[in-house]
Amino acid sequence: MSVADRNTSVVLLSGGLDSATVLALVRSQGRQAHSVSVRYGQRHGAELDAARRIALTHKVLTHRELHVDLDLIGGSALTDTDISIPVGGVTKEEVPVTYVPARNTLLLSLALGLAEVVDAADLYIGVNAVDYSGYPDCRPEFIEAFQHLANVATRAGVEGRGFRVNAPLIGMSKAEIIRLGLSLNVDYGMTVSCYQADARGYACGRCDACRLRRDGFNAIGVADPTRYV
Amino acid sequence: MSVADRNTSVVLLSGGLDSATVLALVRSQGRQAHSVSVRYGQRHGAELDAARRIALTHKVLTHRELHVDLDLIGGSALTDTDISIPVGGVTKEEVPVTYVPARNTLLLSLALGLAEVVDAADLYIGVNAVDYSGYPDCRPEFIEAFQHLANVATRAGVEGRGFRVNAPLIGMSKAEIIRLGLSLNVDYGMTVSCYQADARGYACGRCDACRLRRDGFNAIGVADPTRYV
Repeated sequence: MSVADRNTSVVLLSGGLDSATVLALVRSQGRQAHSVSVRYGQRHGAELDAARRIALTHKVLTHRELHVDLDLIGGSALTDTDISIPVGGVTKEEVPVTYVPARNTLLLSLALGLAEVVDAADLYIGVNAVDYSGYPDCRPEFIEAFQHLANVATRAGVEGRGFRVNAPLIGMSKAEIIRLGLSLNVDYGMTVSCYQADARGYACGRCDACRLRRDGFNAIGVADPTRYV
Repeated sequence: MSVADRNTSVVLLSGGLDSATVLALVRSQGRQAHSVSVRYGQRHGAELDAARRIALTHKVLTHRELHVDLDLIGGSALTDTDISIPVGGVTKEEVPVTYVPARNTLLLSLALGLAEVVDAADLYIGVNAVDYSGYPDCRPEFIEAFQHLANVATRAGVEGRGFRVNAPLIGMSKAEIIRLGLSLNVDYGMTVSCYQADARGYACGRCDACRLRRDGFNAIGVADPTRYV
């Protein structure tokens, strides 16, 4: 069986704007999808509720919510409550404190395990190298390295049924992503991007994720459907 | 800071014979270690108790027990109770049903996240390509691919504080591993290798892991300290 025979994909779904756009894109291309959300001790549990609703809307084959207790590792404002979420604007010079060590490696590992079990050739992740240039695991080098790893690490890879790791948004700005998503009828009111959304999914409007998102809507002159506190 | 400045390592500790030997080796070389066990929905919880005791004996800096619910993914006799543990002898021709999809990728991802947080340069994993030739993620190609990934995926890697992924047992037979461990005073009576050990850690004596282990002790003419049911 070659890669091309397998029309099923695994899509990492955070509940945010980017991954919702990726899922809509995958489905618009006629691919079936298994979606996976990972609860990793982050503060923003409202994202996971959003992910479940987005998965349902886009008619995935299955949706899984996995849990990894990264709070036992810490080292990030997203997993360690002793580190504050920055609200002072995005810096492109250094890695933000919201960087979660090895997070995308871990997320793709879980997606890879599932892809092997359900015989899916394609893994999708909504990383973005333009707006998140400070995150090392949002760069094309990372995606390429993971794809290579996937094909040596697995039974499917060894047996010649290779994996592709797809990051279709990697070179797009937030505005371009939103424009794409709107053309695919993504309901961004369902998505939660805020690093510290409340239990209802209402956004703080001040963190880096909120700023990037709002700037994206502003840039294309579209009303921002985000519910702010 | 260069790699050589960092004398701290992260050691994946399953509670089995191989990883206990790795930890003893690391400690005998004067390195400090943070040990990590991962509960991934496997049947053999007794391994985790063994890992904690081994970590204590070898005076690690910290020991963590992380949980990932791989049972939601399934696809292996070790995570899915609908698949039986084989007792018919090891086959070298194909990947055994005890292969857990992407398991070592996931384990190293978690070790990598911790290594970045505690600023450890070295990751250690007790994989073995000789006895477990059927597992794709026990091969040198896999270790090399993960090391490359680690250095593009992380802040530490990008900033030039690289990671080394060490698999010191990769070319050794089970007998050689046991000989090494005995020279380092590893108490193999504390370790649990069996795929279906009972709650006390007593081994079945029949699964592939038990066979490999017993054959190892036999090959060097040393009494097997394993407690069998």
